[in-house]
Amino acid sequence: MTPAAPTAEEQQTPIALTPGEPAGIGGEVTLKAWRRCAEGGPTFFAIDDPARLERLGKRTGLVFPLTTIDGPEQAAAVFPTALPVLARTLALEPVPGKPDPANGPAVIAAIETAVALVKAGRAGAVVTNPIHKACLYQAGFGFPGHTEFLAHLAGSDTAPVMMLASPLLRVVPVTIHLSLKKAIASLNEDLIVKTAETTAAALHRDFAIARPRLAIAGLNPHAGEGGAMGSEETDIIAPAVERVRRAGIHVLGPLPPDTLFHTAARENYDAVLCMYHDQALIPIKTLDFDGAVNITLGLPFVRTSPDHGTALDIAGTGKANEASLVAALRMAADMARRRAEAAG
Amino acid sequence: MTPAAPTAEEQQTPIALTPGEPAGIGGEVTLKAWRRCAEGGPTFFAIDDPARLERLGKRTGLVFPLTTIDGPEQAAAVFPTALPVLARTLALEPVPGKPDPANGPAVIAAIETAVALVKAGRAGAVVTNPIHKACLYQAGFGFPGHTEFLAHLAGSDTAPVMMLASPLLRVVPVTIHLSLKKAIASLNEDLIVKTAETTAAALHRDFAIARPRLAIAGLNPHAGEGGAMGSEETDIIAPAVERVRRAGIHVLGPLPPDTLFHTAARENYDAVLCMYHDQALIPIKTLDFDGAVNITLGLPFVRTSPDHGTALDIAGTGKANEASLVAALRMAADMARRRAEAAG
Repeated sequence: MTPAAPTAEEQQTPIALTPGEPAGIGGEVTLKAWRRCAEGGPTFFAIDDPARLERLGKRTGLVFPLTTIDGPEQAAAVFPTALPVLARTLALEPVPGKPDPANGPAVIAAIETAVALVKAGRAGAVVTNPIHKACLYQAGFGFPGHTEFLAHLAGSDTAPVMMLASPLLRVVPVTIHLSLKKAIASLNEDLIVKTAETTAAALHRDFAIARPRLAIAGLNPHAGEGGAMGSEETDIIAPAVERVRRAGIHVLGPLPPDTLFHTAARENYDAVLCMYHDQALIPIKTLDFDGAVNITLGLPFVRTSPDHGTALDIAGTGKANEASLVAALRMAADMARRRAEAAG
Repeated sequence: MTPAAPTAEEQQTPIALTPGEPAGIGGEVTLKAWRRCAEGGPTFFAIDDPARLERLGKRTGLVFPLTTIDGPEQAAAVFPTALPVLARTLALEPVPGKPDPANGPAVIAAIETAVALVKAGRAGAVVTNPIHKACLYQAGFGFPGHTEFLAHLAGSDTAPVMMLASPLLRVVPVTIHLSLKKAIASLNEDLIVKTAETTAAALHRDFAIARPRLAIAGLNPHAGEGGAMGSEETDIIAPAVERVRRAGIHVLGPLPPDTLFHTAARENYDAVLCMYHDQALIPIKTLDFDGAVNITLGLPFVRTSPDHGTALDIAGTGKANEASLVAALRMAADMARRRAEAAG
């Protein structure tokens, strides 16, 4: 008798979840996310300090079974009954709300471990809990943030692109963590064209959209109204849209930013390229505050993260909402499955 | 026997509605709005060319009874059975979609008539259909837009302030129709403080909010994150917030713009002061595309308008949605009633 074919879930390589800042809410949302995923998946394992997770569980009342594993291959068997933890010891017991640079090296090492495992095919994707940048800088971290560090570890030659995705909307900010003045000064045709190409490729490969439709927002009110309210549309954005179109991508723009995100408008595209951080973040957080996921496009592996920070003010209370982490895990699993099928 | 006391609706002075650009959708939405308001109010009268409205009705299939009136005092008796029209003849029969500067003087004169009637107490409020600015400029119109012209006619010494309001959100852009670069350069403490004071006064008088709560947004991502992503919060917005607070107004800010508009956040304020056009317009149009109303605060009379333009592309087809005009008429009636009650 032939054994039953493994289900898609059984087949799928488990997701590596990093701890992020151990004084933040990462541990709590990890424990809560396991409860949500234990039935139905996706299977993941935490790279973390098991003893500190147990103490955190007792402190917050989030008492869940943990099982230490030696490698990702053991995660699937453990997952239905306990959170699998690939043990990495912290230098100090973290104090909720008080990041300590002494734990920085372990936070960084966990990210390196996750990337090494996904590059080796032993993890299916990387999901990262939020880090505390100022604290990592004190520990000698030399990258502006998670995304740049991951791109470095990946050895990728494509600039990574940030997408925020929810079931209602996908947005890609072309410029990100810059003052609004610097964001305007940083806009250029090449940046917009490359971001559009990376986004269209990811929508095709990771989201299984046969012919992705991009919308490109203007920068100014009413997209500049023919130059009456700003020239960036004419000088930079419209020529970039034309180059994207000539590259064979279905694209609309530059479009007036304020009429781009209501229900009917959202029918016309698969993702919006936004010119600055809040042009992207305001609509998605207004529409879906807890369910939005941060995705890094342009890496040779799948990486997502919850769309929130370390939330030091509520860390250790057990109040943190795991919805965005669960959404990030599910999104990563879906993307990794589609990528595997496409490679397949 | 004592006659029954008049109802609030019967007591209320009718609203003056201007035609706006006669080649746009103003006429169509006026006809449709009368049908929606004929039962239940509010009572309004159109300042328009009755013959052209009748031809427009036939063209679009929106055939409604019109009655020419000699003055606003006749509107209430007519309104339940016909649209009351205070007749003003146009120079030319308007062609839908093709604004003609020859009709500009009549468009301007209708606004002047509405303001004269509301200043004389014969109209309760002014509601304006959208104008076509470029066409009026060709006709010699010397004001940047409706709002500045109305402030001039009002003889007001307070700078008018634009609010967009829907049942879900009220936003006030501190800078409006400027390129994003110029909007940033235009920000200053006095502008923010004066806008906050006008907004708080209007929320109290026209919206019957005993102690209005204002939220003031930052300009930069994460409200500048302590100077790491822009200095306008530290240099301009925070000092302005402090001055607003010292003026006795309940105020929060500068707040990160992206986490300011979701459902839970909206519980914490009655209106948000936004630093630029799209910071205000993106969230409100995302949340309530058809129901948002444009309100001019700081005038000695109530003025609202629908939150859309002339829509030349669909003018004359009868397709235009009257929802925003109906919301603008109802908002104006509510504001005028509260103002009259407060005046005793």
